[in-house]
Amino acid sequence: MGVVVPLESERGAGRDALDRLTQLVRPDMARVTELIVTRLSSHVDMVPELASHIVESGGKRLRPMMTLAAAHMCGYQGQEHIKLAAAVELMHTATLLHDDVVDESDLRRGKEAARKIWGNQASVLVGDFLLGRAFKMMVEVGSLQALDALSSAACVIAEGEVLQLTTTKDTRTTEDAYLQVVNAKTAALFAAATQVGAIIAQRPHSEQAALSSYGRNLGIAFQLVDDALDYSGRQATLGKSVGDDFREGKLTLPVVLAYRRGTAQERQFWERTLRDGGQTDSDIDTAIAIMEKHGCLTDTVGRARHYGAIARDALAIFHKSDIRDVLISLVHFCVNRSY
Amino acid sequence: MGVVVPLESERGAGRDALDRLTQLVRPDMARVTELIVTRLSSHVDMVPELASHIVESGGKRLRPMMTLAAAHMCGYQGQEHIKLAAAVELMHTATLLHDDVVDESDLRRGKEAARKIWGNQASVLVGDFLLGRAFKMMVEVGSLQALDALSSAACVIAEGEVLQLTTTKDTRTTEDAYLQVVNAKTAALFAAATQVGAIIAQRPHSEQAALSSYGRNLGIAFQLVDDALDYSGRQATLGKSVGDDFREGKLTLPVVLAYRRGTAQERQFWERTLRDGGQTDSDIDTAIAIMEKHGCLTDTVGRARHYGAIARDALAIFHKSDIRDVLISLVHFCVNRSY
Repeated sequence: MGVVVPLESERGAGRDALDRLTQLVRPDMARVTELIVTRLSSHVDMVPELASHIVESGGKRLRPMMTLAAAHMCGYQGQEHIKLAAAVELMHTATLLHDDVVDESDLRRGKEAARKIWGNQASVLVGDFLLGRAFKMMVEVGSLQALDALSSAACVIAEGEVLQLTTTKDTRTTEDAYLQVVNAKTAALFAAATQVGAIIAQRPHSEQAALSSYGRNLGIAFQLVDDALDYSGRQATLGKSVGDDFREGKLTLPVVLAYRRGTAQERQFWERTLRDGGQTDSDIDTAIAIMEKHGCLTDTVGRARHYGAIARDALAIFHKSDIRDVLISLVHFCVNRSY
Repeated sequence: MGVVVPLESERGAGRDALDRLTQLVRPDMARVTELIVTRLSSHVDMVPELASHIVESGGKRLRPMMTLAAAHMCGYQGQEHIKLAAAVELMHTATLLHDDVVDESDLRRGKEAARKIWGNQASVLVGDFLLGRAFKMMVEVGSLQALDALSSAACVIAEGEVLQLTTTKDTRTTEDAYLQVVNAKTAALFAAATQVGAIIAQRPHSEQAALSSYGRNLGIAFQLVDDALDYSGRQATLGKSVGDDFREGKLTLPVVLAYRRGTAQERQFWERTLRDGGQTDSDIDTAIAIMEKHGCLTDTVGRARHYGAIARDALAIFHKSDIRDVLISLVHFCVNRSY
């Protein structure tokens, strides 16, 4: 199961990149957090209660940090990046709430999912509320271009979720079809999150496009590593247990590869366990064994490296700077992380 | 059960108002419909399928017609009111999809609810998609003021839904608390729908406020009459059957009044049937009988008249015109309608 565990030195570099990013945007992130807390207020008590539960449940806050870092790299001197970063995080949080309802998840980031405490109904509605607040904040910023980028992402995310719903449990899903889902569900928001940093700084189209490409490809890499980690052992800090995706019958890239590379008997295994949902306790071990036999986890991380490389190259048009270095080494973190 | 049925002459006038409004905005509404259909497109087949089902399921399209009429009354000469009206309708449709999931409704406008055909999951996600498309259209219009009005309404609607969730089944709900829900769930979108007509025409604040007040109060009147109609017989064309609210345990104004005016025994009846959900087939007849005994339906419509009067007066600052006349007589329609 060591396939997705990188060399110690690489992992160190990745971890270090996240620390450096966190360090760099710390004062701004404190203001983002403060703003989010303020904007969760409501005269309806359940709204801030439920919203705080999920907002404060940790997570790496990668997306808002990327908005802040992108704005910095573009030399932005104003204050509006705080609101945009907060809006990005609220959009993300809203989709998590709806996701958990759609996926019937019991856990989110190692804590009981909001829907288990407050119910599906409240989770749907508070998700709508957060989306509304996110848009309100963007409107306050007043950049129609930023609004366009983020509202387009909102559509694409929802479209991607529906697409996933219709392809779920289809073991014959192609890698391309799966990537389309990842692009929509995950990468679109990463792309918009970094792009708005260049938009708010009024940088030329080429830089906006570069940051969008960086975010998109980093997002894909991030998701693919997530997929691989779900079948590997080292994820105590991810707040998930090994095999969550498997038990939920999710078709992720390791499965897509394993099915296509598998024997007839192995394909039957995937059909029984994922398509038909007939799992026993030991099936997860079999799943991992089949994946390792065909190198599916290593290759999933290999694919992630490919997208990571595109992300890195996208930043090449920017002048060398500390913040650019951090964003580049963030790619290492996303590809080499073990949590 | 004749309490909510107005004099024939009045009903004629109301019906006529809706016809006149429809007539007045017909060319524009055709373009709104065309735009909506275009914007439902998606490479994910289920999205337009599900979305068309609910968008095309009829409904009076009151909200977009009000946006168009408000823009006309304000002398607006451009084309952006079409997009705003379409966005308003999509926002409304998105909330209907989420509402049906939250309320576990089987029917919507007399047709099978989308969630019964495509499932709760798809309904939540396509709702998110429609909300995203609505925002995208508003962004295209480019009026930050209109965006502010509509995104604020989106927050308030979601907040109102959560509030309703937490007060549902509390038979001691006060009229004020119930009105707060109506204000948020229904009236806020009506208010924003008409207000943006004045915003897009760049009319002064006083006219924007007047149209917002008109929309808000018309929305409240509309909802209260809806509440009364649910306990009266004449609603074949509403696509609902008598007692839907009752069976779903919804606390609406007729119930709020009946509980407060009721005897100890009657209060026990409301607690058993609505709070505890222990209903038998004949309970709806008892419910209507108690309401009639205490004049709850007549008085609910009376309350609606009050808000209708405020709506009418709000329009007094506008010059007399055909379109103003139609908007004023639309109040009659909302208060006196029997469907």
